[in-house]
Amino acid sequence: MANDSEGKQLLISSEEALHLARLDEPRLHELLAQMHVSELGELLLSCRKDEERSILLEYIPDELLGEALLELPEGMQEDLLSDFAVGEVEEMVEHLDSDDAADILQAVDKDIADEVMERLEPADRREMEQLMSHDDETAGGLMQAELFKVRSDWNVEKVLQVLRRFGKEIENLNYVYVVDSEDLLVGVLSLHALLFSQPEVVVGSLADREFPRALAGQDQEDVVRIFEKFDVLALPVVDEAGVLVGRITADDVIDVIHEEATEDMFRLAALSDHDDLAEPVGITARRRGIWLALNLLTAIAASVVIAQFEATIAKVVALAVLMPIVASMGGIAGTQTLTVIVRGIALGRVTFANARRTLIKEVSVGLVSGLSFATLIAVVASLWFPDLGIKLGAVIAAAMMVNLFAAALAGAMIPLTLQRLNIDPALASGTILTTVTDVVGFFTFLGLATIFLV
Amino acid sequence: MANDSEGKQLLISSEEALHLARLDEPRLHELLAQMHVSELGELLLSCRKDEERSILLEYIPDELLGEALLELPEGMQEDLLSDFAVGEVEEMVEHLDSDDAADILQAVDKDIADEVMERLEPADRREMEQLMSHDDETAGGLMQAELFKVRSDWNVEKVLQVLRRFGKEIENLNYVYVVDSEDLLVGVLSLHALLFSQPEVVVGSLADREFPRALAGQDQEDVVRIFEKFDVLALPVVDEAGVLVGRITADDVIDVIHEEATEDMFRLAALSDHDDLAEPVGITARRRGIWLALNLLTAIAASVVIAQFEATIAKVVALAVLMPIVASMGGIAGTQTLTVIVRGIALGRVTFANARRTLIKEVSVGLVSGLSFATLIAVVASLWFPDLGIKLGAVIAAAMMVNLFAAALAGAMIPLTLQRLNIDPALASGTILTTVTDVVGFFTFLGLATIFLV
Repeated sequence: MANDSEGKQLLISSEEALHLARLDEPRLHELLAQMHVSELGELLLSCRKDEERSILLEYIPDELLGEALLELPEGMQEDLLSDFAVGEVEEMVEHLDSDDAADILQAVDKDIADEVMERLEPADRREMEQLMSHDDETAGGLMQAELFKVRSDWNVEKVLQVLRRFGKEIENLNYVYVVDSEDLLVGVLSLHALLFSQPEVVVGSLADREFPRALAGQDQEDVVRIFEKFDVLALPVVDEAGVLVGRITADDVIDVIHEEATEDMFRLAALSDHDDLAEPVGITARRRGIWLALNLLTAIAASVVIAQFEATIAKVVALAVLMPIVASMGGIAGTQTLTVIVRGIALGRVTFANARRTLIKEVSVGLVSGLSFATLIAVVASLWFPDLGIKLGAVIAAAMMVNLFAAALAGAMIPLTLQRLNIDPALASGTILTTVTDVVGFFTFLGLATIFLV
Repeated sequence: MANDSEGKQLLISSEEALHLARLDEPRLHELLAQMHVSELGELLLSCRKDEERSILLEYIPDELLGEALLELPEGMQEDLLSDFAVGEVEEMVEHLDSDDAADILQAVDKDIADEVMERLEPADRREMEQLMSHDDETAGGLMQAELFKVRSDWNVEKVLQVLRRFGKEIENLNYVYVVDSEDLLVGVLSLHALLFSQPEVVVGSLADREFPRALAGQDQEDVVRIFEKFDVLALPVVDEAGVLVGRITADDVIDVIHEEATEDMFRLAALSDHDDLAEPVGITARRRGIWLALNLLTAIAASVVIAQFEATIAKVVALAVLMPIVASMGGIAGTQTLTVIVRGIALGRVTFANARRTLIKEVSVGLVSGLSFATLIAVVASLWFPDLGIKLGAVIAAAMMVNLFAAALAGAMIPLTLQRLNIDPALASGTILTTVTDVVGFFTFLGLATIFLV
């Protein structure tokens, strides 16, 4: 029996489902119809192969199929959708909200998407084209077209009438969007405020004109910050002219936050954003291999530094024993700083305005740690190799000091510089950092040893 | 001029604000009253010292003060609140929602909290005691008491009447909670559904009885998963008997998701959860120092391994040049696996049910990378040190193979085991991992070299 994310059991495991597909189709139909889309997603994800997934897809009720597919990683969606005929895609799209429909149409082959688009009603087609025209990671890419908008010169009674007639299909309808005759967004009115108002009041006068809004082209990280800042449950999206084009609900933002955090975490760990548990071993090995190859190059660079001091090491082998300590401590301290700053940038806590102060703080922490651990390692090294005594202690202390300082400087400067250049501050910064701490660590330790010990 | 998180400028910087506090108090009052609480939070955060913050606090309007304080890191909140008198805390609490009020009362000194509690109305006090009785990181700790509940035997008309009379103060009122005569939660009714119903229908028959709910004792990570799974905007919280005790809104969950992601990211990077940009250098250095000290111990352990092979290194110094490559590649590959699994556990993608399959996949990836990079490094090493030739190539290839395999195995087993033991899988796992990859890397490389090269 399979477990779902809350530790509760799924109704059936993928093995059982495939078994039923051969022996008891009606029972499988019945069981799948009882499952939640997220459970269907988990069931599909837990299959071993795409062929198994394709078999199960046939038994998922039409109205859940699209949503279940959208629970899967993008690559898998595209592979599975490549088997679908135009009619099947069309039916799936009809059951979906506009934002999900746009995602499905972007995942199927271009020809099929075009054909499905042609079969849509002209108004729906325009809406879909509008939704598909935005970059995935912008407010426009997140928004859905389903919303309830009213003219600012209507009164409360008319709004309630229209709402009763047309609002029924809109999920999570919490706000009414008030527009003028040009469709420019005037303000937002909560359902709640509407209920407390007199029937004859004009809604233009009730609407909250200060209600936050997102621009269609704005990055999804900005959208998250607006939600966080204003604690709203849905946000209207306008184009550059101020025309209302869609809305984003808080539940969509939750997915974005997870996605952004995963991206940062993965990039810091030398992983591609798309590394997925469900993808085949070969693909994962190749994705990660690129980063490992990059690390191999930088590790070789560090070894080239060590190679310059071969003669020194041959005379004092204790240096080979101790040198990884200096490099490792630099790597860890630098990663601490790097992570705090990358996360600070992502959460909007590290900004252009406080970058200098942040840098000063991190470098100060580096100096304090440098002093403490220099003292500690000097004692350890002198006790461990008593014949080299205080001189070895002084050399390793100086190297540790320099490397922890370099680690803090690099750990802060790398993400701040990348951010300044409009590159994701998490991207490759871990690899650059450890190159710095390895090279500086080995060079100062072995260099000082060559001068003072040999 | 300071910038806020969206790159827009704050109305005033902390320097300007402190300047006005000396020269033009009315103007400062006026400016601060125009700012959003999150901007006030940023302004306070950007002050250099707590003394400066305390000065600015005096000019923040009473109704924003509590919320602005809650924007700050917990340690800072407590420090600032320690200057507040009972009356001031009481006034602040009156302006806050119950969940925020409970957070403030938990941050002030126990004596003051008790006194404020005593001054509350008995009903409010019971509500507050209920809220404060739950662990911070549970559904009960997140929930607020403000919600709109109705009896299941009321009809729509009565509900709308009561709603118009009493619902006005409740923010983000999207759902009406339907309870029976014992206050047991029967189901949930959206405001939206209420509007579309006939006045005489009994709400017990309209309520969605399958609507998800959280148990007060449930971990906040579970709460996030329920929100994600069901795409709701608010969730009712019940106690063990099923009695409705509060609700959690989606905007509170957004904060939790950020918090949980930060925690995992920090723990993976050998940071404490509380590492904060705004805290003094000494405190940060101490917090991080604990982790650096742990890393120093493990780095020394790796050096002890190297020390066993001093004689070998003295004969073949090339080994000292190449050995960090083997260790470094193991560290990176292991971190890749570790990060994917820690994140997979956090997002509910790696579960008890698929743990075995995940482990097999990761180890397979380790074998594939091991083979590829073993070949690559064998060629590099043979070309670099031609006099040691193919033998050195074979030794480093074997060591690389073994270490990438060990890295995958450890990267997967460490978080899965911690999870099994109910310990946060991110905690200290990076340090344990690099200990494994360093020790295995140095031992196999130098050990094989001792057997075959010397």
